[in-house]
Amino acid sequence: MGERLVVIGGTAAGLSAASKAKRCRPELEVTVFERSGFVSYGACGLPYFIGDMIHQPQELVSLTVEQLRDKRDIPTYIHHEVTRIDREHRQVEVLDLETGRAFCQPYDYLVIATGATPVVPDLPGVGARGVVFLRTVEDGIGIKAMLTKGIKRAVVIGGGFIGLETAEQLTQAGVKVELVEALPALLPILPEDYSRAVEQTLLHGGVSVHTGVCVREILTSDDAVAGVLLSDGSELLAELVLLSVGVKPNTALAEECGLKLGIRGAIETDDCQQTEDPHIFACGDCTCTRNILTGEPCYLPLGTTANKQGRIAGGNIGGEQDSFPGVLGSSVTKVFNLYIATTGLTCEQATKGGFDAVSSAIVKGDRASYYPGGGENHINLVFQRRGGRLLGAQAIGSSTVAGRMNLLVAAITAGMTVAELNRLDLVYSPSVAPVYDPLLIAAAQALKKVETI
Amino acid sequence: MGERLVVIGGTAAGLSAASKAKRCRPELEVTVFERSGFVSYGACGLPYFIGDMIHQPQELVSLTVEQLRDKRDIPTYIHHEVTRIDREHRQVEVLDLETGRAFCQPYDYLVIATGATPVVPDLPGVGARGVVFLRTVEDGIGIKAMLTKGIKRAVVIGGGFIGLETAEQLTQAGVKVELVEALPALLPILPEDYSRAVEQTLLHGGVSVHTGVCVREILTSDDAVAGVLLSDGSELLAELVLLSVGVKPNTALAEECGLKLGIRGAIETDDCQQTEDPHIFACGDCTCTRNILTGEPCYLPLGTTANKQGRIAGGNIGGEQDSFPGVLGSSVTKVFNLYIATTGLTCEQATKGGFDAVSSAIVKGDRASYYPGGGENHINLVFQRRGGRLLGAQAIGSSTVAGRMNLLVAAITAGMTVAELNRLDLVYSPSVAPVYDPLLIAAAQALKKVETI
Repeated sequence: MGERLVVIGGTAAGLSAASKAKRCRPELEVTVFERSGFVSYGACGLPYFIGDMIHQPQELVSLTVEQLRDKRDIPTYIHHEVTRIDREHRQVEVLDLETGRAFCQPYDYLVIATGATPVVPDLPGVGARGVVFLRTVEDGIGIKAMLTKGIKRAVVIGGGFIGLETAEQLTQAGVKVELVEALPALLPILPEDYSRAVEQTLLHGGVSVHTGVCVREILTSDDAVAGVLLSDGSELLAELVLLSVGVKPNTALAEECGLKLGIRGAIETDDCQQTEDPHIFACGDCTCTRNILTGEPCYLPLGTTANKQGRIAGGNIGGEQDSFPGVLGSSVTKVFNLYIATTGLTCEQATKGGFDAVSSAIVKGDRASYYPGGGENHINLVFQRRGGRLLGAQAIGSSTVAGRMNLLVAAITAGMTVAELNRLDLVYSPSVAPVYDPLLIAAAQALKKVETI
Repeated sequence: MGERLVVIGGTAAGLSAASKAKRCRPELEVTVFERSGFVSYGACGLPYFIGDMIHQPQELVSLTVEQLRDKRDIPTYIHHEVTRIDREHRQVEVLDLETGRAFCQPYDYLVIATGATPVVPDLPGVGARGVVFLRTVEDGIGIKAMLTKGIKRAVVIGGGFIGLETAEQLTQAGVKVELVEALPALLPILPEDYSRAVEQTLLHGGVSVHTGVCVREILTSDDAVAGVLLSDGSELLAELVLLSVGVKPNTALAEECGLKLGIRGAIETDDCQQTEDPHIFACGDCTCTRNILTGEPCYLPLGTTANKQGRIAGGNIGGEQDSFPGVLGSSVTKVFNLYIATTGLTCEQATKGGFDAVSSAIVKGDRASYYPGGGENHINLVFQRRGGRLLGAQAIGSSTVAGRMNLLVAAITAGMTVAELNRLDLVYSPSVAPVYDPLLIAAAQALKKVETI
C-alpha cells in the first residue's frame, strides 16, 4: 500500500497541494476533505457572481469532485469536516456533515489548508437574518437569492478589497449601497489623495461612503436586519448588511493538536510549508508567511499566495525540494473604472521597518498625449533615501496600473534602485504608452530625492 | 557672452538635448536648426494621423517654435538646413531654405541629431507621383491629402512596424490595402506561429498580405503610380504606394567632416553620446548604440532611445555626468486588435551571440477564466539553457502584453532567471489576471527546460 496524504480543505491551497503531490508521486493515496459544498472555486470571483457578471456558481469552479476523482485520482469529499487531528496515531477524525457518520482517516502526510473565516464583530443584532458574509460559494448564493427577492438597500461594513468590490457589484445590481469604514480613510495603504480618489469614484458610482465612523448596533425588526446605527448617531436603513471587516485564520484543529501558532494566530511553518511536526504541512490563509523586504512574519491571506504555498507543500511531500520566498504584499483591484494596485512597503511601513525611506508621486497619461482613449496612471514610489533602492509602490488609475505594478514587483524583488528603473529600455508605441513611460517619469522624479551613498 | 550650443535637428533627440542642456546651464546660448517645417513632433503618431484618429498635424506637436523660444529660451529655426560642419572653426554653415540665405553659426558644443531617412529601393518607377514615405509630418499631410481625394487602393511595401500600422490605418480610412513583404514571414523577430497570427489578423482586418515576394517594378501611368509588379509576375493595382523598407541614418554632415561612422553607417559615440570630437555630441536615429546583452554595437532607431540619448547628450553638455546604458531592443505595436511586443534577443540572435539559448512558449488568458471580457497572451521566453538566465521575449495578444513585456525588460536587465521570475509575488485580481499570471505560467513552463549549472 502506498503512503497516504490527507488534505484538509479543498480550495486554492489544499487542492494545489493535493494535485502537486499526486503529480510528483502518483503512487501516493491522496484524500481531500472539504467542509463546504464546493471545492476548487475562485473565491475572488464571488463579488462578480453576486453582480451577475458571472451567472452560475459552477462557473467559479475549475475542477469538480468528479473530475478530481476521475481525472486526477484524488478522492475528494465535500460536506466532510475534519474534527480532530490525532498526531500520535497519525490520523484525522472526520464527520460526514450530511449523514452524521464519524470516522478516522489515517495519514502519513497531512496538509492543513483550512483557510480563514470572516471576523464577526461583537455587535448587537449581528445574528439577524440578512447579516451576511462573503467568503464561500454558499455565502454568494445566499446574497444573490436576496437580490433576486428585490432588496433595495444594503450596508457594507468594511472598506477592504472585498467590501469595495461587493459595494460596486451590489450597486450595479440596482441596490443602493452605503459603505461604512471605521478608519478615517479607505485603503490606508494608499497615499491620502489616492484614498480620496477611491472614495470619489465610489460616490460617482452611486455608493455612499461613511469613513471614520463605527457601527454601534445592527438594527433589527422581527429577527431580520433593518439597518445599522452608527457611532455618530445616524441610522442607515438596509435589508442586507455585509460584514467584511477582515478574516481570521482557521486554526482550531492545529491549535488543539498543539501545533505552533504565530502572528495573528496563524499556523507557523518553515519556508517548505512544513510545520514543526514533519508529517504535517500547512498552507494558504490559515498560515503565516514572511515579508520579503523586512524578513518579518506577516499574515496576508491572498489567493495567489495560497495557490503557490499549496503547490510547494505538495511538491515537498512529493519529493521535490521547493520553498516559498515570502510575499511583497502585492495586490490589485478595481472599483468601477478605477484600478488600485500596491506592492511592497508604504513609506510609513518602511520607516517602521527601519528603512530611511522617502516617497515620490507622479501622474502621467498612459498613452501618447495625442493618441485617443488613454487614461491616467498615478504612481507613488517608496525608496531608500540613500542609494534609492525601491521598497514599495502604490498606484491608481486605468487598467494599465496592474502591469506597471508588476514591473515594480520585479524591480523591487531584484533590488533595483530608482536610477536603474529610470534606465530601463521599456517598450513604446503611442497606443500603449507615452514616449517616457509613467514608470520612467516616476523614476526620474524620485531620483531627485535620492542621496548618493 | 555664454557658451553656444548648436543643435542640428528639432525632433526627439535634438530637442531633448537642447532642453536638457538649457535646464542644466541656463546661461548656455542654445540654437536649434530643423530642415523640415515641424519641430517636436511625435513621428510614431503619423500612421494614426493618416487614419484620422488624430485629426490635425498640430496635435502631434508637443512644443511649437514660439514656445521653444518664449518658454524655454531656445531659438529654433525651421526650414533651416545645416549644410556643413566646420570642425576647425567650430561653426556650421546654415541655409535658410525659404529665403536662400546662407550663413555661419559658431558653436562651442554641437549636437548632431539629424535622424534617419527612409531607404529608397532601386526600383523602376520609384520617383512616380503617389510613391510615398511616412517619416515627416509633411509626408503624413501629403498622404492624408491623397486620401481626401478619394483613392481606393494602396500597396504598402515592407512589413515592419510602420508598414503594419499604416496598412491598418489606411484600411480603416476605407482604402483597400495590399501589403508586400520580401521575407517569407512578417516580423521575423517573432516565432513563426506569431508571425502567422499577425498575418491572419491583417487578413481578417481586410489587408491582403503577400510574403516572400519582392517588388520588381513600380508601374506608372503619366508619371503617376498605377500599381506594382511583383517578382512572381503578378500585378497589384494602386494609386498610392508606401515604401517602408527601413531607414538609414542621416550622416552626410558627420561623414563629410570626418567623424567616425560605425555599424550601418551610423555615427559612433561613447556612452555619453560624445563623438571623438569633444565638442560634438550625436544622438538619436543618426547614431549607433549598443546591445545591453551582447555588448555588440547595433543600429536600432527608435523614439524612446532618441529622447533618452538626447537628454543624456544635453546633460553632459550641461555639466551633468550621465551615460546611455544601451538598448535591449524593446518594442511594441498593435495591428487591429493584436498587440505585438518584444525585448532582448530571439533564440536565434542569442545563439549567434554565443549563448546556449532555448525558448519556451505558452498561451494563457489575461484574466480569471470566469471573468468576462478577457483576451489571450502568447508569450515566448528566451533563456540560457544552463541556469535559466532570461535573454529575451516575444509576445502577441491583448493590450496587456505591453505591461507584461515591460516586466520582462526589468527582469532581463536585472539578470533574473526564469526560476526567479517564477517566484515573483505578482498582483492578482480576477479583473486583471488569472491567479497564476501568464508570466508565471511562462516561467514555470520554461523552468522545465533549464539545466542546473
